[in-house]
Amino acid sequence: MARKLILHEDARSGNCYKIRLTAALLRLPLEVRSYDIIAGETRTREFLETVNATGCIPVLQIDEQFLPESNAACWYLAEGTDLLPEGRFDRADCLRWMFFEQYNHEPNIATLRFWLRFIGTANLSEEQRRMVAGKRAAGLAALQLMEDHLRVNDWLVGEAVTLADIALYPYTHKAEAGGFPLEDFPAVCEWIGRIEKLPAYVPMA
Amino acid sequence: MARKLILHEDARSGNCYKIRLTAALLRLPLEVRSYDIIAGETRTREFLETVNATGCIPVLQIDEQFLPESNAACWYLAEGTDLLPEGRFDRADCLRWMFFEQYNHEPNIATLRFWLRFIGTANLSEEQRRMVAGKRAAGLAALQLMEDHLRVNDWLVGEAVTLADIALYPYTHKAEAGGFPLEDFPAVCEWIGRIEKLPAYVPMA
Repeated sequence: MARKLILHEDARSGNCYKIRLTAALLRLPLEVRSYDIIAGETRTREFLETVNATGCIPVLQIDEQFLPESNAACWYLAEGTDLLPEGRFDRADCLRWMFFEQYNHEPNIATLRFWLRFIGTANLSEEQRRMVAGKRAAGLAALQLMEDHLRVNDWLVGEAVTLADIALYPYTHKAEAGGFPLEDFPAVCEWIGRIEKLPAYVPMA
Repeated sequence: MARKLILHEDARSGNCYKIRLTAALLRLPLEVRSYDIIAGETRTREFLETVNATGCIPVLQIDEQFLPESNAACWYLAEGTDLLPEGRFDRADCLRWMFFEQYNHEPNIATLRFWLRFIGTANLSEEQRRMVAGKRAAGLAALQLMEDHLRVNDWLVGEAVTLADIALYPYTHKAEAGGFPLEDFPAVCEWIGRIEKLPAYVPMA
């Protein structure tokens, strides 16, 4: 891969970290441009005009092309590598877990981490407060689905680490910051340990 | 593709229809097993034990393997066909729109359609009622992002229809059932027309 890779990110975001972890495991050089999302640094005219009109990060810049959506960026990096399985079903099954991550896991587990750890309970709006219980229940259900699978499998897809594991690891291993008791999910904890022993693993900032 | 394909679905669901539309455009034979989600037919012991432990549909059955998540199922069908672009960036860019669909579009536009059209305003819970305004705003923002892109492009990725268009078409063309005024998004309406003129196009039930 001779193209220049630049990650536009906020290091506190698990969605951003996913891409850094994928690049690290694949030993791909990745430049980083840092923004403080809470301070509004992804809402400047320059960012909106050049990097992403929605003001969202991460964005993976590949030469002069810009790719939003963390899991799409990871897929771009991992195509043709061991992080995506060879079998057609298993490749689609990786995507199955990655869509689960964005639909069932991230909006609950990552959002509660963001609200409790970075915004703070005292600063939540009335609407946010009302949503906590629903997000708590849905986040626990997502962790339980992972637990049930990992109780009988070392990895989410097949017999080795894939992008499915990389996509789900960031917000799972930080779930306690959102008030989720990881000790209730022992198979998930063992899986976290397996990921952290991978050669070239890098921790979240 | 010699493997037998069975779609476990509820015909009212745009997520299920996505897979039927993908198979139709690719002229793949697809058997259908129908369930009434509102009547709880995906919550039976048999469904949970055999098809999907979460009780969610669609699930694409490929011989004896089961693949949940609509966009993962579409990807399985479309790999190696013209519905996925040849270029690596464009393939990842398809996924970018498909993750946008599941994160920004479906939870707002499809959910309001389900609440207003199938549950009925009078039957919404207090919590659902409180969420309508937020989902309305987020759904309009998703349609605006599509409008801005389609004002200068015929298709979401590249110069022809791809899985990105197929993933976003079902709930977009039914958005008015959720109270979204499609006439405010003329480029989206033209794009809907282009999809409906594709050879082998099939309408939603």
